[in-house]
Amino acid sequence: MSLIIKGGTVVNADRSFRADVYCEDGVIKAVGTDLDTPGDAEVIDAGGQYVMPGGIDPHTHMQLPFMGTVASEDFETGTAAAMAGGTTMIIDFVIPDPEENLMAAYRKWRGWAEKACADYAFHVAVTWWDDSVHADMGTLVREEGVNSFKHFMAYKGAIMAEDEVLYNSFTRALELGAIPTVHAENGELVWQLQRKLLEMGITGPEAHPLSRPPEAEGEAANRAIRLAQVIGCPLYIVHVSCRQALEEIARAQAEGSRVFGEVLAGHLLIDESVYRHPDFDVAAAHVMSPPFRAKEHQAALWKGLQSGTLQTTGTDHCCFCAPQKAMGKDDFSLIPNGTGGVEDRMSVLWTHGVTTGRLTVEEFVAVTSTNAAKIFNIYPRKGWVGEGADADITVWDPAATKTISVKTHHQKVDYNIFEGMEITGLASHTVANGKLTWANGDLRAVRGAGSYVKRPAFQPVFHALEKIARANVPTAVARS
Amino acid sequence: MSLIIKGGTVVNADRSFRADVYCEDGVIKAVGTDLDTPGDAEVIDAGGQYVMPGGIDPHTHMQLPFMGTVASEDFETGTAAAMAGGTTMIIDFVIPDPEENLMAAYRKWRGWAEKACADYAFHVAVTWWDDSVHADMGTLVREEGVNSFKHFMAYKGAIMAEDEVLYNSFTRALELGAIPTVHAENGELVWQLQRKLLEMGITGPEAHPLSRPPEAEGEAANRAIRLAQVIGCPLYIVHVSCRQALEEIARAQAEGSRVFGEVLAGHLLIDESVYRHPDFDVAAAHVMSPPFRAKEHQAALWKGLQSGTLQTTGTDHCCFCAPQKAMGKDDFSLIPNGTGGVEDRMSVLWTHGVTTGRLTVEEFVAVTSTNAAKIFNIYPRKGWVGEGADADITVWDPAATKTISVKTHHQKVDYNIFEGMEITGLASHTVANGKLTWANGDLRAVRGAGSYVKRPAFQPVFHALEKIARANVPTAVARS
Amino acid sequence: MSLIIKGGTVVNADRSFRADVYCEDGVIKAVGTDLDTPGDAEVIDAGGQYVMPGGIDPHTHMQLPFMGTVASEDFETGTAAAMAGGTTMIIDFVIPDPEENLMAAYRKWRGWAEKACADYAFHVAVTWWDDSVHADMGTLVREEGVNSFKHFMAYKGAIMAEDEVLYNSFTRALELGAIPTVHAENGELVWQLQRKLLEMGITGPEAHPLSRPPEAEGEAANRAIRLAQVIGCPLYIVHVSCRQALEEIARAQAEGSRVFGEVLAGHLLIDESVYRHPDFDVAAAHVMSPPFRAKEHQAALWKGLQSGTLQTTGTDHCCFCAPQKAMGKDDFSLIPNGTGGVEDRMSVLWTHGVTTGRLTVEEFVAVTSTNAAKIFNIYPRKGWVGEGADADITVWDPAATKTISVKTHHQKVDYNIFEGMEITGLASHTVANGKLTWANGDLRAVRGAGSYVKRPAFQPVFHALEKIARANVPTAVARS
Amino acid sequence: MSLIIKGGTVVNADRSFRADVYCEDGVIKAVGTDLDTPGDAEVIDAGGQYVMPGGIDPHTHMQLPFMGTVASEDFETGTAAAMAGGTTMIIDFVIPDPEENLMAAYRKWRGWAEKACADYAFHVAVTWWDDSVHADMGTLVREEGVNSFKHFMAYKGAIMAEDEVLYNSFTRALELGAIPTVHAENGELVWQLQRKLLEMGITGPEAHPLSRPPEAEGEAANRAIRLAQVIGCPLYIVHVSCRQALEEIARAQAEGSRVFGEVLAGHLLIDESVYRHPDFDVAAAHVMSPPFRAKEHQAALWKGLQSGTLQTTGTDHCCFCAPQKAMGKDDFSLIPNGTGGVEDRMSVLWTHGVTTGRLTVEEFVAVTSTNAAKIFNIYPRKGWVGEGADADITVWDPAATKTISVKTHHQKVDYNIFEGMEITGLASHTVANGKLTWANGDLRAVRGAGSYVKRPAFQPVFHALEKIARANVPTAVARS
Ligand SMILES: [Zn+2]
Ligand SMILES: [Zn+2]
Ligand SMILES: [Zn+2]
Ligand SMILES: [Zn+2]
Ligand SMILES: [Zn+2]
Ligand SMILES: [Zn+2]
Ligand SMILES: [Zn+2]
Ligand SMILES: [Zn+2]
Repeated sequence: MSLIIKGGTVVNADRSFRADVYCEDGVIKAVGTDLDTPGDAEVIDAGGQYVMPGGIDPHTHMQLPFMGTVASEDFETGTAAAMAGGTTMIIDFVIPDPEENLMAAYRKWRGWAEKACADYAFHVAVTWWDDSVHADMGTLVREEGVNSFKHFMAYKGAIMAEDEVLYNSFTRALELGAIPTVHAENGELVWQLQRKLLEMGITGPEAHPLSRPPEAEGEAANRAIRLAQVIGCPLYIVHVSCRQALEEIARAQAEGSRVFGEVLAGHLLIDESVYRHPDFDVAAAHVMSPPFRAKEHQAALWKGLQSGTLQTTGTDHCCFCAPQKAMGKDDFSLIPNGTGGVEDRMSVLWTHGVTTGRLTVEEFVAVTSTNAAKIFNIYPRKGWVGEGADADITVWDPAATKTISVKTHHQKVDYNIFEGMEITGLASHTVANGKLTWANGDLRAVRGAGSYVKRPAFQPVFHALEKIARANVPTAVARS
Repeated sequence: MSLIIKGGTVVNADRSFRADVYCEDGVIKAVGTDLDTPGDAEVIDAGGQYVMPGGIDPHTHMQLPFMGTVASEDFETGTAAAMAGGTTMIIDFVIPDPEENLMAAYRKWRGWAEKACADYAFHVAVTWWDDSVHADMGTLVREEGVNSFKHFMAYKGAIMAEDEVLYNSFTRALELGAIPTVHAENGELVWQLQRKLLEMGITGPEAHPLSRPPEAEGEAANRAIRLAQVIGCPLYIVHVSCRQALEEIARAQAEGSRVFGEVLAGHLLIDESVYRHPDFDVAAAHVMSPPFRAKEHQAALWKGLQSGTLQTTGTDHCCFCAPQKAMGKDDFSLIPNGTGGVEDRMSVLWTHGVTTGRLTVEEFVAVTSTNAAKIFNIYPRKGWVGEGADADITVWDPAATKTISVKTHHQKVDYNIFEGMEITGLASHTVANGKLTWANGDLRAVRGAGSYVKRPAFQPVFHALEKIARANVPTAVARS
Repeated sequence: MSLIIKGGTVVNADRSFRADVYCEDGVIKAVGTDLDTPGDAEVIDAGGQYVMPGGIDPHTHMQLPFMGTVASEDFETGTAAAMAGGTTMIIDFVIPDPEENLMAAYRKWRGWAEKACADYAFHVAVTWWDDSVHADMGTLVREEGVNSFKHFMAYKGAIMAEDEVLYNSFTRALELGAIPTVHAENGELVWQLQRKLLEMGITGPEAHPLSRPPEAEGEAANRAIRLAQVIGCPLYIVHVSCRQALEEIARAQAEGSRVFGEVLAGHLLIDESVYRHPDFDVAAAHVMSPPFRAKEHQAALWKGLQSGTLQTTGTDHCCFCAPQKAMGKDDFSLIPNGTGGVEDRMSVLWTHGVTTGRLTVEEFVAVTSTNAAKIFNIYPRKGWVGEGADADITVWDPAATKTISVKTHHQKVDYNIFEGMEITGLASHTVANGKLTWANGDLRAVRGAGSYVKRPAFQPVFHALEKIARANVPTAVARS
Repeated sequence: MSLIIKGGTVVNADRSFRADVYCEDGVIKAVGTDLDTPGDAEVIDAGGQYVMPGGIDPHTHMQLPFMGTVASEDFETGTAAAMAGGTTMIIDFVIPDPEENLMAAYRKWRGWAEKACADYAFHVAVTWWDDSVHADMGTLVREEGVNSFKHFMAYKGAIMAEDEVLYNSFTRALELGAIPTVHAENGELVWQLQRKLLEMGITGPEAHPLSRPPEAEGEAANRAIRLAQVIGCPLYIVHVSCRQALEEIARAQAEGSRVFGEVLAGHLLIDESVYRHPDFDVAAAHVMSPPFRAKEHQAALWKGLQSGTLQTTGTDHCCFCAPQKAMGKDDFSLIPNGTGGVEDRMSVLWTHGVTTGRLTVEEFVAVTSTNAAKIFNIYPRKGWVGEGADADITVWDPAATKTISVKTHHQKVDYNIFEGMEITGLASHTVANGKLTWANGDLRAVRGAGSYVKRPAFQPVFHALEKIARANVPTAVARS
């Protein structure tokens, strides 16, 4: 089973160069100019195109049970749609309920994911704390290849982690060499504002952004950062949606902290006016948290991405269809939170990032794939077109155009938040584990072809942090 | 009963000018050049001196029951010592225990304070929440002249207010026209670090600053600010001790928030090295929260005061003697928190602020008296030398010098954190309620001569905030 | 000649209170409740109104010879219009040409100003340098009551001051106790961009903002600040128009510098879209420097004003009529720079500042009058309603409304940049030097009734700066 | 001619991995585990060591004619010393005098450099402007492989470039795809302070830092940045030495600018106290510009390097011996500016950067080699250990120690600014162009073995900038 991509320009995060790419048995075997084509190899003509590492979406929620329903997109359909957009790996989330055993939850999600067409991994959420959680974190890192743990600072009364849980879990994660990640919103504030808005009779989706102001996100981002600074651990903040949170990350980095930031394609491009759409279905379709923001925030996020303050781009792909969204018809706080995007992320980023000059093509690769691979310690197996890497590749046609639409997308959801957006720059072919899964509009994803990717602990910054910790061990003063 | 101060330079926050000041019946009756001296008036020669509004210390804890003991300085001795340093009014704190009735606590403190020699008022702490607290806040503001409420974000397991209490209390305070104030430290983080340090066997006072890092203060300051921004209320942050908290205030002000900051004389001048003093008593004598900080923070605080980011100076005067401090001999977390300073604040500020060129003399008056009076809405009755104001005056000799020492101070505590500091600039005379209470070293304070000062609600910024709120009332989208 | 204002609320920068105000011989003789009304006194009923210090516009250019023409508004008409809007004093500019003798220029302007209806003073521009300039600065400060010098960092080839002039002049000003002020734009950059745009064939007013980007202003503001920091002098930056310059001021203040910032009513409210108006006359009527900016800057400036980063508001009132503006019909760089506003400043500020909750009424007084008086050291003679102050008062009706229009304004110019703006809050009466000059629409300004106001050197911050300088005198290392 | 490095850990900027490295004909031919060793290959045992791309020092001045003398270190000795420290390439500077023909100067320097032992390239300084400079810049870029131009904002009266030159040169550089670089200090301010200090009788080296305050550097950095922002070009700021300049870069990056920053090993570690050393020779030996700074700046610079705000590390290696330094015995402004360091840079960075936990090993490679190669567009030929790259390699022993001393260093200068510093981490072997030039203390550099490296124009950010420029072309408004 072999495949050769010929005549393209390979783009990695560090540089671009003309080369052919030869893949065999799921692995890239050669990258070079004028490679020979084995007789049985499938040949992809990449003339005039870029050959890039397949996208990694570090933030998806396939078939998530949430707010009384289950996300419509499952691991099979979701990873298939991803490949139609050039993304060849997702990192999804195991989210135990409070009191639920972590290992049990983990195994449940592993089972659901077996049907995935593309490779996948899991962040595991820490939503509560006791000795079993402490122990299970160890097992997950050491035996299961989990190297990141998620914490929800919002969703009071459900999965919200208070500071005590954050402190314990961050401390444990540092010890294990795993990165703590947070959904940063002050859950108390959100909860109070939801109550207040409902009392005022503002029950529609327009109340959603009002109940989750940027200040609530900035607050939580800063709180998580300060905890991480004191504990001495790295931190990854998911879905940074506003100037306030971005500024906290930039400040922390300037203070010497190892803080990473992720931004969603949606937050880069959609503004909060959607929530005042007169059609409930349209407005509700955009309900996700953090919400879309006023326009000034989109400008800030782009600059954060360009300057390197933010390193990764995701989607928080979590699909609910109109009948599900309608659960919150009379109470916006009951609308299941989530939108799609796993298929559109790379095209949207290219169109608004590369063609506008905000990002170089190498930076595009960094923020759509390589940086996630590095942060989550699966680089260069993933995130790199080079000899020995997994053959996860997207062949990118910078001149191709289309108009995004729910009518033509492959995502299993009845709405597309980018509906009508004109795109320049598309995956013409996607190769996953050495197999062609998307070719000029033909989706050939195979159920179950994806594998679980173990992620080693202790990515490089942990070694640096350990030296700092060792130099700063507190000492007692000897007194008589 | 009349008194005239002749030949000095009156300094108010807005300007300085040569004038005599005539007081009668506790009130300033005339300010002007070459005033006539009534035959029976006591005459104070202020030649070559400044005549300034008496200092207001907005942060003291006289005879506070705290951590299993009671502060050694009571309302009588403390206000007497204050007058020896030119301070003629204090704002102390009523601190109910969780579940304790606010009105009952308030009355208890009012009783204790009856013996005060100088005027006083009370911030009332909100340490818990239920309907009675909501109601009592109303009573306190409307009937008792309380216009500020205090919240401790530290002291987990005791008086710490969680975000839910903060949200409810800030919201209620806004409605009442009272200013929320916070002690900003993340109590969870402090608690965890205390446990960790004790487990490591670091039990001495050197563990105190390690358990309360600047990040914990910056975190809490930002959290309180973000809550205030969302709620739309002003905020006053007590004892800002570090760059991190200062930066949060500066940013909030730049964002348009009405946030005020207080700094203590101690935090401006003492650094954290004191906690590693080999003598337990010395180290423990400096235990207060937030702790004294690394030197970079003092430099930052001075700039914050000069630039107007911080508006007031206090002391957090809360005295415990060596035998009391010894309660924490084997466990630093049990050392009663607090230091003195009410007597020294103004001299220390003058010496290090005015003689160094950091502050003009007018700014000195602003930060030691006028700004506190304005923020807590008792200006120009207090904080001003002008016709009609209370006759609370300090005659300030800019050339006088002394060396601060526990041996000579009037504070009822066995240690002085400014021990050995050489001072230039002293109160030669203090007039309180029209009576001379300090004259060239002679302390004539009278037990019970001070009165409780009612502070009206709705200081000017509330009117501005109300307009903003009215313009931003959320509205529902009409949908069929 | 006496006058009493009865029943109003006096508003000073520090507080508001109900009082009558009695004026005689040009001076406020009494401020108090229920003052007696002398028989011959003119009585103004201020019921329901505010009685505030008359506005001070610290930035006007009456009858300025500039760019080959002369501003249409002269000292008589301009000060009359000012009074119709509640402004009772202007600080104008003496602008010598390079090589022109400063004293000669100063005397020329003094002559022109004799016809002024309201009080006035002069900033004197330093546009070149030699020993005579050094000497004349001394004469101006010591004998003529000039305490501020202006420097144009733009207008290359004309009045632009290079760094060498700035260094020399700032140094001399510090020595004299006078405040250096700057028009902050990088003149080289503006000049180059003008050339480039003209070469591209972009000759209309739309090129004006393109040739003067915010970066050019931020650059110059920072350069002037850094020079001032090294020299140790205060600095006043006129017409701050953009976020970039504002940020420089905020940073300098946080670093401990004595930097003041002025903002124009126009920059707070008008955005750059005006330059693309299809009618040349309309577009050209808005040509002033710095230009009006993109909307984000207006929001930033308001926050700067509210937070105290900016202290004063002016207009840069400098009127040119359409035929004058037409000089630049084919070359935007020849359009005389300037717009009106001296009449509208206070109403515009009230409408958009006070009624919106951005400013309290006391802050309104501070930014329209008191702060300018303090900075330029004529407080409390000006900028204060109090006994002994000049009787320059505006009686302000917060409920009065009008629509601004060139058809009804008193300014001698054929365009009003606030045309059509609906105003709430107007001067019902203006009193200047104790005389009623504006009464419910009746303008009674008297030619020549205004006087030149001498401004003493060494305002308070100079004393603080001197102490800092003394403590930092460089010393040599003794070496053998 | 072949060579194999066996058993080490290859470290590139993106990752580390165990591999052997085989070099032949000056090029890396293979990187892999367990490579075969050709019989004639020289074998280097890298067990327990790191195999990293040879260092690139982007800032040296070999045999520079400057301030009336010539730097003692020439291209031969300097590149030899570099290799003793693991550095295999330098980028030096061609510095024409004002009015001197650029091409002539360039050829002169090319001639001097022929004896270099290691590879080299040249930044070319633009110190004046006319049509020939414009033309020569084109020739240099298009024919000579120069892709960066240097501008001195200091050195008034000598090589200082005024804003007009900066504007013209930056504009031209953008057009050519070359990066403008600046030495950022306000030359006017430096010149004035030099005069003032000399007049005060402060003539020793202690006057050097007093004449070049951080504000002067921050000013110039910001000025260059604002010019670059308006022109739309990238910018590289050499030898960032202070917080002020660092903050400007960070802000520019956050604003979306493509600004790069370089820091010198000396500025990271040495503070300004050296200038007050009682021995003139010692003090003078440290005279370089910008000067060493107060300690707070070192802390800031390390954070700038760690956070990525600064990308490269250099030395500004420019050696003058005591007799040369003595030219300024009576006038500090005549002391030839410059210090050594090309040999020590990498060890100093490792010791204080990697062993302290500030930098990961991969980041160490980035800041000592790879980032310079990327910015100056010679990556991956330089700055990478990979197949096809130049065989410029340092084998790094992280456990090796030494004490830096002038007695043992290879630099041709009689002082070492790092004298006495204890180092952990040394180059055990250096390979340049495939030849072993340094082996466990044996320096085998060969005169003339180095080559001039042509650097292609238009590194990746230019393509992004071009798109932004195209989208922002100014347009005229059509008016009748
Ligand atoms: Zn989330
Ligand atoms: Zn999510
Ligand atoms: Zn406290
Ligand atoms: Zn306290
Ligand atoms: Zn101007
Ligand atoms: Zn002007
Ligand atoms: Zn240099
Ligand atoms: Zn150099």
